[in-house]
Amino acid sequence: MFELIKAAAAHIKGHAHRTPVMTSRTLDAKTGAAVYLKCENFQRAGAFKFRGAFNAISQLSDAEKARGVLTYSSGNHAQAVALVCRELGVSATVVMPGNAPATKRAAAEGYGATIVEYDPAARQREDIANEMAAAHGYTIVPPYDHTDVVAGQGTAALELFEEVGELDYLLAPCGGGGLLSGSAIAGKGMCPSCKVVGVEPALADDATRSFRTGKLHTVHNPPTIADGTRTPYLGKVTFPLVLKYVDDMQTVTEAAIIAAVRFLLYRAKLVVEPSGALGVAALLSGAAAVTGRVGVILSGGNMDAATLTTILNH
Amino acid sequence: MFELIKAAAAHIKGHAHRTPVMTSRTLDAKTGAAVYLKCENFQRAGAFKFRGAFNAISQLSDAEKARGVLTYSSGNHAQAVALVCRELGVSATVVMPGNAPATKRAAAEGYGATIVEYDPAARQREDIANEMAAAHGYTIVPPYDHTDVVAGQGTAALELFEEVGELDYLLAPCGGGGLLSGSAIAGKGMCPSCKVVGVEPALADDATRSFRTGKLHTVHNPPTIADGTRTPYLGKVTFPLVLKYVDDMQTVTEAAIIAAVRFLLYRAKLVVEPSGALGVAALLSGAAAVTGRVGVILSGGNMDAATLTTILNH
Repeated sequence: MFELIKAAAAHIKGHAHRTPVMTSRTLDAKTGAAVYLKCENFQRAGAFKFRGAFNAISQLSDAEKARGVLTYSSGNHAQAVALVCRELGVSATVVMPGNAPATKRAAAEGYGATIVEYDPAARQREDIANEMAAAHGYTIVPPYDHTDVVAGQGTAALELFEEVGELDYLLAPCGGGGLLSGSAIAGKGMCPSCKVVGVEPALADDATRSFRTGKLHTVHNPPTIADGTRTPYLGKVTFPLVLKYVDDMQTVTEAAIIAAVRFLLYRAKLVVEPSGALGVAALLSGAAAVTGRVGVILSGGNMDAATLTTILNH
Repeated sequence: MFELIKAAAAHIKGHAHRTPVMTSRTLDAKTGAAVYLKCENFQRAGAFKFRGAFNAISQLSDAEKARGVLTYSSGNHAQAVALVCRELGVSATVVMPGNAPATKRAAAEGYGATIVEYDPAARQREDIANEMAAAHGYTIVPPYDHTDVVAGQGTAALELFEEVGELDYLLAPCGGGGLLSGSAIAGKGMCPSCKVVGVEPALADDATRSFRTGKLHTVHNPPTIADGTRTPYLGKVTFPLVLKYVDDMQTVTEAAIIAAVRFLLYRAKLVVEPSGALGVAALLSGAAAVTGRVGVILSGGNMDAATLTTILNH
């Protein structure tokens, strides 16, 4: 898999941003570590998702590109697929629950995607996606459970190691495990001694329980503010990768997530969405007891006014 | 003066951050220009003010350092002086109005400064500062009207040109004119063809009127959200420099300032305070009709929850 990440880095070059690595004296002072923040909030479409979407879609055949791409997501992956498709001249269809926030729908539509609504109480999004793909010839680019998507997401950690050298720890958020497994493979490839730690909200701790037991656990619609981690379970591709490459999983409270977003906003002047702040939440709350040189993937920065207001008023 | 800016760059090296230059495809698309954002919101203590404070205080004699430094400011300059003094082992006293926000006072105190309150209705801050300096031997480091402060502030623009090369325009906010005149001197020194444009809130347009008429105009406590530009007039040092080196001044509405802060927050994922967003406000509102390669100084990122909430709810 590490070779696939290096290949993905070549595929996305000149299309995805090589995002900056930021540091914060205050964060270092509070944690006693040297912390390197990989700022995927500055990635195109506002999150790491552009990497995996570009790596997957750019490798489709001309015939597949001509038939179009379909995905299911109400979040950052939908925007990333829509933007990549616009850039590559591919039609994009996004299956999205009818109750998805209007801002998320508008963002994907703004990049030119066609939205297909469904009733999440009545149907599974994967079933609708499979039906539509069969009927129209679309290629499905799922949000995480796909080797090319995982490889693309791993390029963020690859760039981090290229820029800062060896790390003692690498912290990455975990939703469906695409970013985490890609980061872990890149981490072990670049620096075998680096401990890779996945971070989840305590309210959405399916991956932590799966990791600890070796059996797939699920959660459904967990009420966490970290909306990027509301995925119900690790995937067929990502679960074995997480088991093989990740060293530990930690959970953080909602209060710790909100405190981390506020810290990044007020002190580091970075807009980072709740899911993106999980690594910093683990550091500041002490959930991840780490020392030395610590890399943290700030995975995205897309937040609507309601979420931001909730965080400011907390 | 350009030589003083180059000397200041040497003085601050290793102490001030060399802040990143960011770009935004969306901003370029909206403006039709290639815009380079010099991110002084990531500067130490959250604003460009650290540069001038460090340049001035680090050049004091040992005897002056032993007697201590005094300044008057309720904003970013106070924090910068306090932080620089802490770093250099110098005692810092800040004269601040009794009605200054508690967060601003706490920030300067957090860096170890002693706060002296005064009643702004009864007395001028400069008078109190002069009395205290005479009584205690403090060296006054004013917020803008001082050659070493101006030279320090000019290093941000110097770094911008060093990083991106020639520019057609350079936009900088204008309060007391320290940042603007420093930026203009650096700009003309690095790229004589570059047009330097100062930007003010329309509600606090004293510098624009002074620039256009050649006579010093004043405003008192203008009700602009851009609190860094509420200074009543250009200084004895800065006014002649603005007249000599600045090509044009433009004003922007409060609505344009708020829209710029929101754009930077939601799209660029950058926390920039209202005063710091004046250049982007001029670009997005069309107040500054510029083309080609455009540099913008994002001067700071310090905002309290009340200001940010006002902006989000606007």
